[in-house]
Amino acid sequence: MTKKNAFYAQSGGVTAVINASACGLIETARRHPGKIGRVYAGRDGIIGALTEDMIDTTAESPAAIRALRHTPGGAFGSARYKLAGIDKNRAQYERLIDIFRAHDIGYFFYNGGNDSMDTAQKVSEIAVQMDYPIICVGIPKTVDNDLPLTDCCPGFGSAAKYIAVSTREAALDVASMARTSTKVFVLEVMGRHAGWIAAAGGLAGEKAGDAPHIILFPEIAFDAQAFLSKVKATVDKRGYCVIVVSEGVKDAAGKFLAEAGTKDAFGHSQLGGVGPVVAQMTQQAFGYKFHWAVADYLQRSAHHIASKVDVDQAYAVGKAAVQLALRGKNAVMPIIVRKSSKPYRWGIGEAPLSAIANQEKKVPRNFITPDGFGITGACRRYLLPLIGGEGYPPYRNGLPAYVTLKGISVAKRLRKPFVI
Amino acid sequence: MTKKNAFYAQSGGVTAVINASACGLIETARRHPGKIGRVYAGRDGIIGALTEDMIDTTAESPAAIRALRHTPGGAFGSARYKLAGIDKNRAQYERLIDIFRAHDIGYFFYNGGNDSMDTAQKVSEIAVQMDYPIICVGIPKTVDNDLPLTDCCPGFGSAAKYIAVSTREAALDVASMARTSTKVFVLEVMGRHAGWIAAAGGLAGEKAGDAPHIILFPEIAFDAQAFLSKVKATVDKRGYCVIVVSEGVKDAAGKFLAEAGTKDAFGHSQLGGVGPVVAQMTQQAFGYKFHWAVADYLQRSAHHIASKVDVDQAYAVGKAAVQLALRGKNAVMPIIVRKSSKPYRWGIGEAPLSAIANQEKKVPRNFITPDGFGITGACRRYLLPLIGGEGYPPYRNGLPAYVTLKGISVAKRLRKPFVI
Repeated sequence: MTKKNAFYAQSGGVTAVINASACGLIETARRHPGKIGRVYAGRDGIIGALTEDMIDTTAESPAAIRALRHTPGGAFGSARYKLAGIDKNRAQYERLIDIFRAHDIGYFFYNGGNDSMDTAQKVSEIAVQMDYPIICVGIPKTVDNDLPLTDCCPGFGSAAKYIAVSTREAALDVASMARTSTKVFVLEVMGRHAGWIAAAGGLAGEKAGDAPHIILFPEIAFDAQAFLSKVKATVDKRGYCVIVVSEGVKDAAGKFLAEAGTKDAFGHSQLGGVGPVVAQMTQQAFGYKFHWAVADYLQRSAHHIASKVDVDQAYAVGKAAVQLALRGKNAVMPIIVRKSSKPYRWGIGEAPLSAIANQEKKVPRNFITPDGFGITGACRRYLLPLIGGEGYPPYRNGLPAYVTLKGISVAKRLRKPFVI
Repeated sequence: MTKKNAFYAQSGGVTAVINASACGLIETARRHPGKIGRVYAGRDGIIGALTEDMIDTTAESPAAIRALRHTPGGAFGSARYKLAGIDKNRAQYERLIDIFRAHDIGYFFYNGGNDSMDTAQKVSEIAVQMDYPIICVGIPKTVDNDLPLTDCCPGFGSAAKYIAVSTREAALDVASMARTSTKVFVLEVMGRHAGWIAAAGGLAGEKAGDAPHIILFPEIAFDAQAFLSKVKATVDKRGYCVIVVSEGVKDAAGKFLAEAGTKDAFGHSQLGGVGPVVAQMTQQAFGYKFHWAVADYLQRSAHHIASKVDVDQAYAVGKAAVQLALRGKNAVMPIIVRKSSKPYRWGIGEAPLSAIANQEKKVPRNFITPDGFGITGACRRYLLPLIGGEGYPPYRNGLPAYVTLKGISVAKRLRKPFVI
């Protein structure tokens, strides 16, 4: 294959380490100047391709690219923008090919979750139909850890570490206060339909009785009676109860708990998330004083306590994406392969995009204790290696020295604008 | 003075570094075995004294005591328990003296905020009245940073660092997502009536336009119109708006914003805190998609990103408390004295408890920008040294290796129980 430019885009919710994948990709591409010309990044993800709004990463210094490895967020901007099926919106796909053709792009790298792998797969299909030669490689990313085939997803390990560490720390606080003050503490975490991040909260405890005492998984239908009984038993025995609740918890009817009848005075559905809802339940039932925290974006951007394993894996899949592309592999995604849990050893494999797209890997039942409120030894053995090591960023003036890129735009070559 | 035992208690909301003060105190006391016998700690604060429920710290190994320096929460338990005035509840004060007498306690160290300094002051008064010789020394502690005379309060620097770092990180996340998703992000922080922690969020930005774009201080009456105008102007110009809001923000009538008319469907006043309230306001006004986080206990227990300066100062005031006591200083509190801001140099001074008790130091107006939404250069110069350095704890299996003490009880000597 002759020398071609590459296009890279970040997609969906960003993570503490998605830029580490960008770093791995760009640094590796730069080592192959005979094969890969310039790496263009979509400004705000795939939208940057559709609107011909691309950043020329060539203008960024080696030091700036290196600093991406420790910088959270999406350095080029991401997008929540799902391309419809080819039959429904052929124009968008054709537009992408037009852009790629105009800029001599022979490699399409898409860094995201399930939806994004679906898009990357479709781009590879339309390219064949339009007889445009391009290699499409997906790069896994999601704090939700819900992609199939790969052992874990870059971004998850750092969110997991943040939640495990924060749960351990907040539990020490609650334990100190319980006698005269807070009895119940609730930490609400992300994860959508998958309880992986909530499960990671379980790593905070090491022996029976340690916090968290209750984990509420989206995989387990919420049973208010069982929950309240467990809270009471825990407070009676330990003096306090620490609860980690996944944002995606639903009741037996499949309704999100956060939506269950909690409208504010203006009639808007819930102000708070599910965290305050379950905290309040314990107060109504037993009069316990409660506190709750909602980590929200903090948990997925906390590179200050990134998992070193996660940073390394994020970098590795970015690097592997380029290597796969240079070997002519099309419509694939590098995956993390676990070779051993103890000691933890991992490598990089590959999977076809078609096998990844639109699939969702939830926490299996044998990772959750029979009562539905905790994690099993098997779950712990799976999770623990993923939070290994501290991927600390450098600091300047007491704050992490995160990089802001120059973000120089690539000159437009198409006359036609494209309206999103 | 002959050899006497010492009593130490933690009081009020705990912090990431209150145990560092305990560490400084116990390690220093152990270096003076001729003057100080055993250090007893109140289990759950002053309640442990009243109920004769004390922990003998002598039973803890040097390694365990050393590990207190990096362990958040209150290792002996704390209490939200304010002793009433001597005239109103003389029995409680007399009980304390009875306990001290029974256990040959000649030193009373009380580690807390304004209320606690008031209690320590009163104990020193009743001791004189009851002719019981005891030296009472306060040790400052509060994430709220609202004690007078001391330049800053141990516990604040670490909460400040956590909030500054988290604001910077979450802002990178929001910036990535803004084009197609979240436009407004709100982080709710602690601080009660003082906006110090909220002000620390301002350190996340370094140049004009950087996040956070708006800080809502309890010192500034909330003006909904001015707030919404600023949000809109920011989103129009930057594409997104990051807001740090103090839990104690009030409207012009002095009413907490979090209470302003937001009852849930059950008629309970607010589920969420003020964070979701202001986030929702921006959606109602402009339809912006929002996210919000409530850091709650996470911010005051996050030793994983403790300020090294804060850890050192917390240790130093614990150490200084013993040194003051050994010099016969009664009814005093060690304070942090700033000698220079750049480079930052500090030392330990002292102040009488009577001058500290029940005072509250708020953020001065000249630390807040004229529009009421930001911090000034003077504020930045004050705050920046306090988040200096990373006081990382050691890790084991990917998690901070925090210590749990043995907590061996001191044998009771009084027959009479005491009901709290």
